[in-house]
Amino acid sequence: MTKVGIIGGTGYTGVELIRLISRHPQAELIVITSRSEAGKRVSEIFPSLRGICDITYSQPDPGSFKACDVVFSATPNGIAMTMARELLQAGIKLIDLAADFRIQDIEVWEKWYGMTHACPELVAEAVYGLPELNRDLIRNASLVANPGCYPTAVTLGFKPLVESGAVNLSDLIADAKSGISGAGRGANVGTLLAEAGDSFKAYAVSGHRHHPEISQNLTSLSGSEIGLVFTPHLVPMIRGIHATLYATMIDGYSNDIQDLFEFSYRDEAFVDVLEPGSHPETRSVRGSNMCRIAIHQSGSRIIVLSVIDNLVKGAAGQAVQNMNLMCRYDESTGLDVVPLAP
Amino acid sequence: MTKVGIIGGTGYTGVELIRLISRHPQAELIVITSRSEAGKRVSEIFPSLRGICDITYSQPDPGSFKACDVVFSATPNGIAMTMARELLQAGIKLIDLAADFRIQDIEVWEKWYGMTHACPELVAEAVYGLPELNRDLIRNASLVANPGCYPTAVTLGFKPLVESGAVNLSDLIADAKSGISGAGRGANVGTLLAEAGDSFKAYAVSGHRHHPEISQNLTSLSGSEIGLVFTPHLVPMIRGIHATLYATMIDGYSNDIQDLFEFSYRDEAFVDVLEPGSHPETRSVRGSNMCRIAIHQSGSRIIVLSVIDNLVKGAAGQAVQNMNLMCRYDESTGLDVVPLAP
Amino acid sequence: MTKVGIIGGTGYTGVELIRLISRHPQAELIVITSRSEAGKRVSEIFPSLRGICDITYSQPDPGSFKACDVVFSATPNGIAMTMARELLQAGIKLIDLAADFRIQDIEVWEKWYGMTHACPELVAEAVYGLPELNRDLIRNASLVANPGCYPTAVTLGFKPLVESGAVNLSDLIADAKSGISGAGRGANVGTLLAEAGDSFKAYAVSGHRHHPEISQNLTSLSGSEIGLVFTPHLVPMIRGIHATLYATMIDGYSNDIQDLFEFSYRDEAFVDVLEPGSHPETRSVRGSNMCRIAIHQSGSRIIVLSVIDNLVKGAAGQAVQNMNLMCRYDESTGLDVVPLAP
Amino acid sequence: MTKVGIIGGTGYTGVELIRLISRHPQAELIVITSRSEAGKRVSEIFPSLRGICDITYSQPDPGSFKACDVVFSATPNGIAMTMARELLQAGIKLIDLAADFRIQDIEVWEKWYGMTHACPELVAEAVYGLPELNRDLIRNASLVANPGCYPTAVTLGFKPLVESGAVNLSDLIADAKSGISGAGRGANVGTLLAEAGDSFKAYAVSGHRHHPEISQNLTSLSGSEIGLVFTPHLVPMIRGIHATLYATMIDGYSNDIQDLFEFSYRDEAFVDVLEPGSHPETRSVRGSNMCRIAIHQSGSRIIVLSVIDNLVKGAAGQAVQNMNLMCRYDESTGLDVVPLAP
Repeated sequence: MTKVGIIGGTGYTGVELIRLISRHPQAELIVITSRSEAGKRVSEIFPSLRGICDITYSQPDPGSFKACDVVFSATPNGIAMTMARELLQAGIKLIDLAADFRIQDIEVWEKWYGMTHACPELVAEAVYGLPELNRDLIRNASLVANPGCYPTAVTLGFKPLVESGAVNLSDLIADAKSGISGAGRGANVGTLLAEAGDSFKAYAVSGHRHHPEISQNLTSLSGSEIGLVFTPHLVPMIRGIHATLYATMIDGYSNDIQDLFEFSYRDEAFVDVLEPGSHPETRSVRGSNMCRIAIHQSGSRIIVLSVIDNLVKGAAGQAVQNMNLMCRYDESTGLDVVPLAP
Repeated sequence: MTKVGIIGGTGYTGVELIRLISRHPQAELIVITSRSEAGKRVSEIFPSLRGICDITYSQPDPGSFKACDVVFSATPNGIAMTMARELLQAGIKLIDLAADFRIQDIEVWEKWYGMTHACPELVAEAVYGLPELNRDLIRNASLVANPGCYPTAVTLGFKPLVESGAVNLSDLIADAKSGISGAGRGANVGTLLAEAGDSFKAYAVSGHRHHPEISQNLTSLSGSEIGLVFTPHLVPMIRGIHATLYATMIDGYSNDIQDLFEFSYRDEAFVDVLEPGSHPETRSVRGSNMCRIAIHQSGSRIIVLSVIDNLVKGAAGQAVQNMNLMCRYDESTGLDVVPLAP
Repeated sequence: MTKVGIIGGTGYTGVELIRLISRHPQAELIVITSRSEAGKRVSEIFPSLRGICDITYSQPDPGSFKACDVVFSATPNGIAMTMARELLQAGIKLIDLAADFRIQDIEVWEKWYGMTHACPELVAEAVYGLPELNRDLIRNASLVANPGCYPTAVTLGFKPLVESGAVNLSDLIADAKSGISGAGRGANVGTLLAEAGDSFKAYAVSGHRHHPEISQNLTSLSGSEIGLVFTPHLVPMIRGIHATLYATMIDGYSNDIQDLFEFSYRDEAFVDVLEPGSHPETRSVRGSNMCRIAIHQSGSRIIVLSVIDNLVKGAAGQAVQNMNLMCRYDESTGLDVVPLAP
Repeated sequence: MTKVGIIGGTGYTGVELIRLISRHPQAELIVITSRSEAGKRVSEIFPSLRGICDITYSQPDPGSFKACDVVFSATPNGIAMTMARELLQAGIKLIDLAADFRIQDIEVWEKWYGMTHACPELVAEAVYGLPELNRDLIRNASLVANPGCYPTAVTLGFKPLVESGAVNLSDLIADAKSGISGAGRGANVGTLLAEAGDSFKAYAVSGHRHHPEISQNLTSLSGSEIGLVFTPHLVPMIRGIHATLYATMIDGYSNDIQDLFEFSYRDEAFVDVLEPGSHPETRSVRGSNMCRIAIHQSGSRIIVLSVIDNLVKGAAGQAVQNMNLMCRYDESTGLDVVPLAP
């Protein structure tokens, strides 16, 4: 039984971690911290967890996690990096759901995240926790950088194309759409129901933090520089990401693209390649760790549709998948939730 | 292992039954019929079930269910009654999620449902499947009438008041609000997103089929006639029922109402009495079989707030709970889904 | 041409006032203040007003409104009362969309609003701005307390019953449901789309500030004490209030209730009594100043359904209606917006 | 005063036409037909129009429109073409909101719309009613093909780029997102709130009827063949289209793109070019005839964001704009509706 701690469990990734770990047969949540809610029961903040999680939030302090085997950091960016060394030194595995360890180029990270990195040397050690890319490295990692939600949907959608050399790498477009839980549980005018409901918009078109993360992934997969336009949009729904990806086949490429995807993901439990001509809906993965992908082709243009639940495969579910790998459990343990539709 | 069949599995109660049974450790779905979709895989209609349910819809015919131990009827009203006798004679237990066996007074049923009942004698045999009322009867039943969604939320909210004699029985009001999945998956102008979205209305104020069902329940609990106003409303959300119940304490009643509820439901796995002053949200039970109840008091006026997921405790989850009782499994087997929130 | 100022125009009632006044043929907006947004153009905060309102927010100061004939206060509670005397002394008419002048009993006001009233003597002077109750008083008023959203829907729904003596006054129930814009445009976790979307709940069941306001209205209409239960709920939609009202006819009352309503509102431009058996939808008044009412009867129980747009008839539209009366324009001037449906 | 008729006024474009014409100072609606609802008052079907439109639906017959100056056809595709000749011969101007007269290449039309065209010779006569392209032709037209909703948003967003030669014409991408009212008011499982709510998906990626229409527009603007990928998506909201457009500047193009757009649309009442870096929201045009456009640039990649209300600028509002041109009224007459936000 793996003893689990959560740093900062009052946001959406926190409540999702609790949901999943509470039903995980080999993990047990023993501590969850929150500066703002210390002393309150988790189920006071999240009544959906009444009868499921009886833990009380505690103040984070150096010894909070000493009994843990694995700690998930579900805090805003910049927190995990201040605690990582201590946890690792205590022999605790750390999975950071924020961005502190995702970008290998510290300068790039500091530019996008607007702070000085507290432990650049640990970034080099950290493994980027997308199992479909780094399964073996994750198995042996002590520190995992859990991917961002957009990077998960976009990278899985582009992977077979980019690593096979099927497409022109300088001309990739990711038009991505996210449900509003991606913006977090912080009080904010822009994500009020009366502001974001019944409306649609793009945001951060001139630059989004997930752009360098996606670029790093695709560059690593292709072995060369890539050119990417990334356009995020906000959808008036709670959960879900839909990435619509555009790429152009290189001249002379003659393999079947559908086959390429099916072969690439033939052994993946959490990537589902749909039949040709399909249109995956985000609700088809609601609450589950699945990524569903459909491929369309129009001449040399390839259009990939990739959907995930941003809070599960895009955050907490993928974190549990990583824990499973790090703890040598079956990768799917505790992740057999049936998507909730309707 | 209980072998399960589903009659008519293309509606919302059908897909929910499949979701729950696919994760039930002691039940296995072996046949699912649909006149309209026979020959298609279930997962073509419900892509959320890809990888979870590989069954193909078959045409309903007399022998369809011969290998089943339990059959759920998830069809419109009026179908189960035409198949019940045959199934029961074959020794198969039947749980009808429609209304064919809910109302003991055949005349009342025929008036509200606008058809002649095909087997009145089976109605007398049928057990109304609200475990919190009829647990022991359900255990021994072959034919269970699974309650309606509003009747479940309203009956559980009124039960302690009505059976204890705490309130005036002639003056009960149930102001109930339902998500739109309660209207089913049929094509219908009124339930289009562009019609029902971002709007709110009452409907069927002059009379709703669930009124006689609720009245029957409350009369049975109180042992005398009751007077009930029932006002259903449509909420622009997918799942969930919120019943706001009004009753007036009888003069001289001196017990604590909160205590009354807590005591009444002390052993119930699926009824959660919240702390005084609470306001349950429908999303706190989304996807789960739980009913959450809060009690407020203003002088002699008692206000009960009762929420369920209309498709789970109000339909498929309760049906599985009934199956568990009928098959002598632990009542909660397969129903430990954590509510999905946000 | 009436010169208009708005105090605090960054909330929803502010943007609605601008929308309506910009199309009002006899009013011109000349100043709008905001502490937080001073210096920005209104259309930067509300892009829907690009090309419609070119005004820039200014800091509120004593002289801000000196050129105005009418000032609307669209601030939080407690601000208008600090500015009222000065404006009135300058001969400016003031319409407060907050609650500062709504409750005649200062003690009650101070209890519910948690502050000391700055000018109790002006409360006595203020006219409660529900034209269907106080039309003549409003015409001659300098200071109008614009009603709350719930009180508008509930009072208009109960008025014919209460003033005619048709119903038992001790036993009134208002089960009211509001879209989320009623909670304002402030950053708040509870009104995020990811919190309030796709869910439904009651709130403030133990006591809401609009309760004493409704009670004051109904008492004034009936001439005697009334007993009211008021239960507000939050609907996952942007605009709209639906009040479901319950009352019991007194023994021996023999007039037709539908006739009573039709007669009572026969001359009202903004109250629409629907045919018997109707179910008004909130979207049928979206963006408009209309209140639509339907009456149902079940034995001696009367059920009234009353819908308004909380931001229009429940706030800005009613304020413009009051301005029209105070300035002796036709009461409907500038309020002929067709409801937006779908 | 222009006398107006509407063929088929029970869909969303019909109710929008009525909303706009009822407030148009120079047009009067005198007849509206519907096969299915003949005999009912319009306001029975659309209660939002109570007190605004007192007309009764009539059966369409040859003489229905003889007193009209202008007739709008708001029917499904394939109806207007059967009535056009007769109306035109009677001297009545016809504006078809469906697709019968949009595509000049009859063969292409017949392929996409799956029927034989009833009057190919009238197609040649018809003017494509996008005023920003064809203002002068529209002024003199008797038969106007009102553009589709996607084609309006996409064409206006690409127009300055395509006609100036700024971009590579072989490599255009339109990733478009529509609210669900675009699918019409017909009963349909896919557009139920419980199916399309809280979810997001692409559809018709392999081919959508608006593709040839957009291509025709862009080819006409550029004078040469264009290559376009068009990907429509369904947003869980009622109204609004957001088109995200991608194009690549040709080598050596040196003009400022923002200037290009501002200059191109400097005289347009219904195209609003936002400041650089903006992200238009669909709600900023809700209920209005405005198209708002923002331009972003990333190296040689240009990203245009274009939003309209699909039922107004994308349908009924543009139709009224066309009527104004054909009748020589000011182009904006009756179209000064302030967008409804929130």
